[in-house]
Amino acid sequence: MTSSAPASSSLALPDDLVGRANIGVVGLATMGGNLARNLARHGSAVALFNRSPQRTRDLMAAHGDEGTFIPTESITDFARALARPRTAIIMVKAGEPTDEVIRQLTEVFEPGDIIVDGGNARFTDTIRREAAAREHGLHFVGAGISGGEEGALEGPSIMPGGSVESYETLGPILASIAARVDGEPCVTHVGTDGAGHFVKMVHNGIEYADMQLIGESYDLLRRGAGMTPAEIADVFAAWNRTELDSYLIEITAEVLRQVDAETGLPLVDVIADRAGMKGTGTWTVQTALDLATPVTGIAEAVFARGLSTQTAPREAAQARFTEAQGYPGGTLAVTDRAAFVEAVRQALLAAKLVAYAQGFDEIRAGAARFGWDIDLAAIARIWRGGCIIRAGFLNLIAAAYDGDPADAPASLVLAPHFARLLDAAQGAWRQVVAHATLAGIPVPAFASSLAYFDGLRSPRLPAALVQGQRDLFGAHTYERTDRPGAYHTLWSGDRSEIRVG
Amino acid sequence: MTSSAPASSSLALPDDLVGRANIGVVGLATMGGNLARNLARHGSAVALFNRSPQRTRDLMAAHGDEGTFIPTESITDFARALARPRTAIIMVKAGEPTDEVIRQLTEVFEPGDIIVDGGNARFTDTIRREAAAREHGLHFVGAGISGGEEGALEGPSIMPGGSVESYETLGPILASIAARVDGEPCVTHVGTDGAGHFVKMVHNGIEYADMQLIGESYDLLRRGAGMTPAEIADVFAAWNRTELDSYLIEITAEVLRQVDAETGLPLVDVIADRAGMKGTGTWTVQTALDLATPVTGIAEAVFARGLSTQTAPREAAQARFTEAQGYPGGTLAVTDRAAFVEAVRQALLAAKLVAYAQGFDEIRAGAARFGWDIDLAAIARIWRGGCIIRAGFLNLIAAAYDGDPADAPASLVLAPHFARLLDAAQGAWRQVVAHATLAGIPVPAFASSLAYFDGLRSPRLPAALVQGQRDLFGAHTYERTDRPGAYHTLWSGDRSEIRVG
Repeated sequence: MTSSAPASSSLALPDDLVGRANIGVVGLATMGGNLARNLARHGSAVALFNRSPQRTRDLMAAHGDEGTFIPTESITDFARALARPRTAIIMVKAGEPTDEVIRQLTEVFEPGDIIVDGGNARFTDTIRREAAAREHGLHFVGAGISGGEEGALEGPSIMPGGSVESYETLGPILASIAARVDGEPCVTHVGTDGAGHFVKMVHNGIEYADMQLIGESYDLLRRGAGMTPAEIADVFAAWNRTELDSYLIEITAEVLRQVDAETGLPLVDVIADRAGMKGTGTWTVQTALDLATPVTGIAEAVFARGLSTQTAPREAAQARFTEAQGYPGGTLAVTDRAAFVEAVRQALLAAKLVAYAQGFDEIRAGAARFGWDIDLAAIARIWRGGCIIRAGFLNLIAAAYDGDPADAPASLVLAPHFARLLDAAQGAWRQVVAHATLAGIPVPAFASSLAYFDGLRSPRLPAALVQGQRDLFGAHTYERTDRPGAYHTLWSGDRSEIRVG
Repeated sequence: MTSSAPASSSLALPDDLVGRANIGVVGLATMGGNLARNLARHGSAVALFNRSPQRTRDLMAAHGDEGTFIPTESITDFARALARPRTAIIMVKAGEPTDEVIRQLTEVFEPGDIIVDGGNARFTDTIRREAAAREHGLHFVGAGISGGEEGALEGPSIMPGGSVESYETLGPILASIAARVDGEPCVTHVGTDGAGHFVKMVHNGIEYADMQLIGESYDLLRRGAGMTPAEIADVFAAWNRTELDSYLIEITAEVLRQVDAETGLPLVDVIADRAGMKGTGTWTVQTALDLATPVTGIAEAVFARGLSTQTAPREAAQARFTEAQGYPGGTLAVTDRAAFVEAVRQALLAAKLVAYAQGFDEIRAGAARFGWDIDLAAIARIWRGGCIIRAGFLNLIAAAYDGDPADAPASLVLAPHFARLLDAAQGAWRQVVAHATLAGIPVPAFASSLAYFDGLRSPRLPAALVQGQRDLFGAHTYERTDRPGAYHTLWSGDRSEIRVG
């Protein structure tokens, strides 16, 4: 598939290739290219299109022998190459570039054809795009694809939304390239319109919390117990053979074992302690706020990244609030290191459970708000492979949500297995948070998750006082514990109570 | 001002009243009516208009003798009644009703006239409306007005945005009706376009955090130390004579002293422990997330209200995670009650400071993002009276931000007075959080604020590990501590490091 024509001319599609491709990919940067290769390796005939044709040619030159590719150099030829219903996966930048490709495909596609957005779009954009495509008789599928560049090539976890009808065509193709766990492909039809991108967003939010909790655990072992990165790498490697078994625990050991060639120092000591982010964690918390669903662990993780980049106040605070001024210096008096390591492991397990419980609550709340029929057990199962938060733990979550949704636990923490886990872990969790607090080691996600759990199980919350304050200054009314209705005390009058609703 | 014409007919404006009003109010529900009365009492001639004329007539019948009112029954007459530049304050519901009134006024107003939105609009709506009004040559001013119905009548805290030019007309009028502290009116030109509503939003967010911290303090004294609401009312009354002196502390004592006439129980025990909210707290956190500014105290407060209303998981968790199952029951072994009360007071003071520091950080970040020149000291001063968070404390914040902005502290916690406050309070703050954690009393805002503070002053954060993880799974690169540039370790390759930026 080479051409002697100048690079600027278009290579026309030979007639015998018309309608030969069962799937197409638009946008052939690393993610899109890898996805196309994965598709071709698994038996699909893959039409290719990229705005700049050189990228298509490069892909063909490097990987054209891995399967059946049909490179095209115009969107019209791309459409002609596809069998009906035409099915195209867009792998370009979120936002305006995605809208531009959708516009182009809308012109050349026909009713019944399927446009898949495989980028990290905001789910509200996906809802809007799906509605617009539907007016043209097209199916629009927002599909979250997790696993990064390697996952795209070797098997990602895929979270498609869109119509049930489109999934009849799309499902088998996605199943062929998805990661597999226990023989099951890590893909399911999540729900209509934006459901797939919504669930992918929450996946990323949970990932933030998980990483922050691992970071706090590391800090406790490092500063608190005075262990070296290499020693802590061994701890994480050992934890990876317990219920904590997961990709993130595994790579934490790898990062901690890495030595900087230049300085001979542990790499983690050479990396600047400023963590970046790209938006999906922020969206997860913002959306949870709209849904009035507490996702405190994710929020603390996002804020902790924000704090880490605030260089000016950090430097000033480091200089002012020192041990010389009477502040604790971040060390713990650890006498039994093995017991301390185990306590941190228990705390990590418990706090991680709460973070996942909050994330699944957000999915449930989103499903209720947006009218999606989301099978939470299926979501847990497709996260077991291919994605960043893949973990054995997710089998337990799937089991907790399996069966009749009417019998599902009101929160994951209440599923019998997890409740017993908390029975065993809560004591250590409290000790870890209390000692870290006294030692001046920030554990925002550990502490916030525990406060949430204690809030859930408190028979009375001071929310009653807050509601009383609101009634006093804003006549916002309150409910009573002993009978229905809305009530207001005439605070500026004779202080009698009136029923107002 | 009565008419014998049927209620449905319009009362035409007599010629001698044309151009007589220096200000008008559109929307005469309680807030708007009270604001109009406040204006008239302070010497303004106030044009009145309400969609339903009966409300205008009722206001005239009840309060027409309190000053100079010019009631009108059409938007055209309303405009005719106003002297130029015509100045109208809209006091209708946020959203579509506000847009509708703006449309009507835009038709009858002329270039140079001023439209003020005194409702709780989202600041992004205000930015949009200001730009649209400017195309018609009109000034549009989003003005946050705090203090509720009583404040509107007796003197609110007012946070106007919009153009500097419009403030020449509007400023003296608003100053005449605002609350006054030490002779200064609680109003200032906050900044252009949406700055006023932005600052009002953050005011409300801080209010959420303040109320949550008071609630946690109450819970510690009530459940933890076993004190009665009446005893705790005395504690808050005493605290109100310390640095905590504030409206919210004052009304907390009032709420706690209130006895339910029907049951004879403290009212706070009769009020259902579900706290409502109306959106500005949520917006504050969502906006802070967009600005990457940690507002952990406000976020925990908003989430705590959300948690309080989750009846099903709360009831299930209360039944499952009990003392019989080994969980702590919320009581503290307090031997010296006075010392404990003082420790809680210190914790409240310190955590409150962090909440305000985070709120002012958000204002600073918003000003930088949206191009507003906001005087933080002036904001602190106008919050000293009229609004819900009014407090002596705000004098200290004003002092911290007074002078050259280049010399302003990088965070309020670093202002010398506040740093010394933290020196004195941090030990008690840690003890309170640690003991609450062990006792199972949720103190999310206390704990989160402390974790934030310890994060600020930590010489190294585990963000370095997080960034290492991100580089491993997503090639997100990292910075080094020892030289500039962006780096990536070839994790799947030979694990050497390459410079990528």
